[in-house]
Amino acid sequence: MEQTVVAAVKGIVGAEHVFDRFEDRYCYTYDASAVTAGKEGMPALVAYPGSAAEVSALLKLANEYKFPVIPRGAGSNVSGGSIPCAGALVMVLTRLNKIVGIDRKNMVAEVEAGVITAEFQTEVEKLGLFYPPDPASKAFSTMGGNVAECAGGPRGAKYGVTRDYVLGLEVVLPTGEIIKTGARTMKCVAGYDLTRLMTGSEGTLGVVTKVIVKLLPLPEAKKTMLAIFDDMEKAAETVARVFMAGVIPTTLELLDNIYIRNIEAAVNVGLPVEAEAVLLIEVDGDKEVLDKQVGIIEGICREQGATVKVARDAKEADELWVARRAAFAAVSRVRPTIIGEDCTVPRDKIPEMVRIIRAIADKFDIIIAVLGHAGDGNLHATILTDERDRDEMARVEKAAEEIFRATLAMDGTLTGEHGIGLVKKKYLPLEVGEGGMMAMRAIKRALDPNNILNPELV
Amino acid sequence: MEQTVVAAVKGIVGAEHVFDRFEDRYCYTYDASAVTAGKEGMPALVAYPGSAAEVSALLKLANEYKFPVIPRGAGSNVSGGSIPCAGALVMVLTRLNKIVGIDRKNMVAEVEAGVITAEFQTEVEKLGLFYPPDPASKAFSTMGGNVAECAGGPRGAKYGVTRDYVLGLEVVLPTGEIIKTGARTMKCVAGYDLTRLMTGSEGTLGVVTKVIVKLLPLPEAKKTMLAIFDDMEKAAETVARVFMAGVIPTTLELLDNIYIRNIEAAVNVGLPVEAEAVLLIEVDGDKEVLDKQVGIIEGICREQGATVKVARDAKEADELWVARRAAFAAVSRVRPTIIGEDCTVPRDKIPEMVRIIRAIADKFDIIIAVLGHAGDGNLHATILTDERDRDEMARVEKAAEEIFRATLAMDGTLTGEHGIGLVKKKYLPLEVGEGGMMAMRAIKRALDPNNILNPELV
Ligand SMILES: Cc1cc2nc3c(=O)[nH]c(=O)nc-3n(C[C@H](O)[C@H](O)[C@H](O)COP(=O)(O)OP(=O)(O)OC[C@H]3O[C@@H](n4cnc5c(N)ncnc54)[C@H](O)[C@@H]3O)c2cc1C
Ligand SMILES: Cc1cc2nc3c(=O)[nH]c(=O)nc-3n(C[C@H](O)[C@H](O)[C@H](O)COP(=O)(O)OP(=O)(O)OC[C@H]3O[C@@H](n4cnc5c(N)ncnc54)[C@H](O)[C@@H]3O)c2cc1C
Repeated sequence: MEQTVVAAVKGIVGAEHVFDRFEDRYCYTYDASAVTAGKEGMPALVAYPGSAAEVSALLKLANEYKFPVIPRGAGSNVSGGSIPCAGALVMVLTRLNKIVGIDRKNMVAEVEAGVITAEFQTEVEKLGLFYPPDPASKAFSTMGGNVAECAGGPRGAKYGVTRDYVLGLEVVLPTGEIIKTGARTMKCVAGYDLTRLMTGSEGTLGVVTKVIVKLLPLPEAKKTMLAIFDDMEKAAETVARVFMAGVIPTTLELLDNIYIRNIEAAVNVGLPVEAEAVLLIEVDGDKEVLDKQVGIIEGICREQGATVKVARDAKEADELWVARRAAFAAVSRVRPTIIGEDCTVPRDKIPEMVRIIRAIADKFDIIIAVLGHAGDGNLHATILTDERDRDEMARVEKAAEEIFRATLAMDGTLTGEHGIGLVKKKYLPLEVGEGGMMAMRAIKRALDPNNILNPELV
Repeated sequence: MEQTVVAAVKGIVGAEHVFDRFEDRYCYTYDASAVTAGKEGMPALVAYPGSAAEVSALLKLANEYKFPVIPRGAGSNVSGGSIPCAGALVMVLTRLNKIVGIDRKNMVAEVEAGVITAEFQTEVEKLGLFYPPDPASKAFSTMGGNVAECAGGPRGAKYGVTRDYVLGLEVVLPTGEIIKTGARTMKCVAGYDLTRLMTGSEGTLGVVTKVIVKLLPLPEAKKTMLAIFDDMEKAAETVARVFMAGVIPTTLELLDNIYIRNIEAAVNVGLPVEAEAVLLIEVDGDKEVLDKQVGIIEGICREQGATVKVARDAKEADELWVARRAAFAAVSRVRPTIIGEDCTVPRDKIPEMVRIIRAIADKFDIIIAVLGHAGDGNLHATILTDERDRDEMARVEKAAEEIFRATLAMDGTLTGEHGIGLVKKKYLPLEVGEGGMMAMRAIKRALDPNNILNPELV
C-alpha cells in the first residue's frame, strides 16, 4: 500500500487506530475457521474506524485506490469470512461499541455493530426483555458479525435466527454511501428489503454500523431436561416427533457419544459417558404450560427408549448448559484441527443424515463427531483431524464434499448458520445453481462495482 | 404489439390462455387501489401461463422484443402494483393453482403462486397445522401476490408477516432464468437471501412461481374480546400497555367511531355505535394461559376506562370477525372512493398518530376513518372521498403527504404491508433517502437490465 494511502487512512481514523507492523497484521490473518491467509494473504493495514462517517471515508478511499477491505467483528466466524487477502485493509468494527438505546415501551433496541452479543443480552434482560439469538460464541461475537452471518444458536428451534429480529440497519455501502434500511417499526415494506439482503451477506455488500432489533418479553420460566439414549437412531427420530406433537421447544440439541465423553472429561458435570446420544431439551414460556410440555416431551422420549432427567433447579440446568457450551473446546482435545460443518436438513431427515455422516466417517477413516441444533435440522458434523496431515486432509475434503452432496440430495442446505465464506465457496453453485450464482454476482457487481468488500468471497 | 409477438405468446401458453380483445384487456387496467391505467395504459395482451417454463419463455420473449410484463395474482393489492402500462403483457398467475404438498412431519408446505391464501389455510388446518399470515383479502388473494407484497394481516401482532414464513421460492428472473431460492429447512444462509429480497419486491425483480412456507402447530384455543372506549386517546394508549405487560396478543385491531357505525349498519352484530373506539383483541395458544392473558388485558383496558366483553363462544367471536372483515366494504357506503393508507409507527406513537390524522382531516376538510392492526403500529388511515371531485382530491393528496411526513418524523414507515406501488412511489425517497434509492435501482438494473418487469414501479 502506498504511503500516501496509509497516511490517508491514519488521517481518517487517527494514527493510534491503525496498525501496520508485521506482527500486528499477522494477528488478523486468522478467524475461527481452519483457514488462514498465511504470509501470501497478509493485509496491508488494520484500521479501527470510530464512526459510520469514518467507515464511509475509508471505503471511498478504497474505491479511489482500489484496495480490498475486509470487515471484521470478533473474527469468530467459522467459515473463513474474515480472512484477508494480500494488500487488504482489515476494518475492525469493535470501537463501535455503544448500545444506543433500549426502548422498553416499543421493545426495540438500537446498537452499534461492535457491541458484544452477550453484553447486549444482559442489558436487555435487566429490563425484563429478551433478545433470543444466541450463537454459542455470544460471549465474544459482535452484533454486526451476527448480522453479517445471520447467526443462529440453540434457541433457534423456537425463536429463529438473527434475521428474524433485525428490523433495520445503518449500512455503509461498498461505494461509501451511508444508508438506513428498514425501520423501527414491527413491519415495513417500503422498497426492497435491503435489511434482509444485508443480513447474511458476510460483509460483501456493505459494512453494518448500526443494528435495530426487535425484542420480546422475557419468558416467565423455563425447564431444562436431558434425554439419554443408547441408540443414536432413536434419539434422531425423537426430534421430529416432538414437533409433531405440537410442542415447539426452545432448544433441542443433539450430542453424540464422542461429544458426551469429551465434554464430561472437560467439565465433569455427570454426563452419561456410555450413552450413544443425548438430547438437551429446554422449553420456556408461561409457567402454566411448561409442565404440560415437559410431560409430552418426556413421554415421547421414553417411548423412544430414553431415560429423561429434568433439571431440578437453575443450578442443574446451568450445568447442562456449561456442558453444551464447552462442546467445541472439549473435542479439540481429541485432534488439533476441528472442522465444524453445519449442513441443515428437514427435521425428519436427521436420522438418515446421522447414518450417512457415520458411513462417510468410516469410508474415509476419519473421526466425525455429531452435535447439532437438531430442532432446526442443523447438524454440526464435526470433523476432528490434523491439518498438518496432508493425506488425512485430502480424505477430509472428500468426506466433506460427500456430506454436502448428501445434504442437498435430501433437500437440505450447505449451511444453516455458519455461512459460505471461503470454506464452502466452491460448493455454493451445487446448492443455488448457475441462475442463483448469476443473480448473486449481479447484485454484488451492482452494489460493489470495484469489488472492494471481501472480494474473495463472491 | 406486433402480430409475430402475439403469435409467439399464443404459441407459448396456448391461444385459449391469451386475451387480446379490448374488453378483456380493459378488465386488467384495475386493481384494488384507486389507480387505473385508463385507455392510455391499456395492456397489449393478457396471458395466463401454465408453468414456470412458460413464464420463462414469455420473459425471454419480452427481453427480445422489449415489451413490459406485469405479473398479476388476484389484483387485490391496494397500492397500484398490478396496474399495466401501454403495450404491456399482463401475466396472470392464477393457473398455477396447485398445492404441491403439505409435509406434516416437517411442518413445511409448497404451493404454486396462484393458490388462494384462504384455500391453502383451510387445507393446512385440516392437518392440525397453521399458516398465520391472514390479509383481510385472503378469500381471494394469491400466495404469489402475498409474497410479492409481503402481506400482513390482523394476526401480525403475534405471528409476523408473510416474510416470516417464506422459506424458499421458485422464481423466474426478469431475464427468464428459473431459479430456486432458500431451502425446505428452517435455516439457510447459503449465499445472499434472495428469498427475502424477492419477498415484498412487488413483481419487479422476478415472477414467483412456487412458494415454500413454514407452518406452525395449530394453536389449541383462542379467546376473543372487544374493549369499548369512549375516548380514542385511551384506546390508542392501551396498545403499547398490553405489550409492556408481557402479553403478545394474536390480534389487536383498533376501529374508530366511523368504522364502528358503518360496520354495524352493514352487518348488525350489536357493535357499540356510540363508542369513540373499540379494540378487537384476540389471544391464542395453550388453554392454560389464555384466561391469565385475558385477565391481564381486561385489567389494562378497564384501567384505561374501557368496558370489556369477552366472546362467550365461537359464534360470538365469529360475529366480531365478520364485523372486522366487513370494515372496508362498510365504509365504502359513506363515499365512493376509499384510499386506505397503511402508515406504521412505533406502538407508543399510536396516540400521537391518531391525533395527527384527525387534525389533518380537519385541516383539509375531508373524512378520514381510522382502523388499524394497532398491535403492529399499522394504522389504516382511511380517506373516504370521491375521485370525481377534483377539488377534494387535491386536498386528499395534500393530506396524505402530511400523514406520510408525520409518520416518518416519528420513526415510522410509509407502508407496513400494502407496498409502495404506483401510489406511494413518489414518496419513497423521503423514507429511504437518495442512497437507498440508488441501491434499490442498482439492484433492479442488475436483475432486470431491460426493465421488463413492472417497469413503472421502480
Ligand atoms: C465457539 C464458537 C461457537 C459458535 N457458535 C455458533 C452458533 O451457535 N451459531 C452460529 O450461528 N454461529 C456460531 N459461531 C459462528 C458465528 O458466525 C460467529 O461467532 C459470529 O456470528 C461472527 O461474529 P464476529 O463478530 O466474530 O464476526 P467475524 O467473524 O469477525 O465476521 C464474520 C463475517 O462478517 C463480516 N463482518 C463482521 N462484522 C461486520 C460488519 N459490522 N459489517 C459487515 N460485515 C461484517 C466479516 O467480514 C465476515 O465475513 C460460533 C463460533 C465459535 C468460534
Ligand atoms: C379488502 C382487502 C383487504 C386487504 N387486507 C390486507 C391485509 O390485511 N394485509 C395486507 O397485507 N394486505 C391486505 N390487502 C392487500 C394485499 O396486498 C393483497 O390483497 C394481496 O397481498 C395481493 O395478492 P394478489 O394475489 O391479489 O396480488 P396482486 O394484487 O395481483 O399483485 C400484487 C403485486 O404483486 C405482483 N405479483 C402478483 N403475483 C405475483 C407473482 N406470482 N410473482 C411476482 N409478482 C407478483 C404484482 O405485479 C403486484 O405488484 C387487502 C386488499 C383488499 C382488497
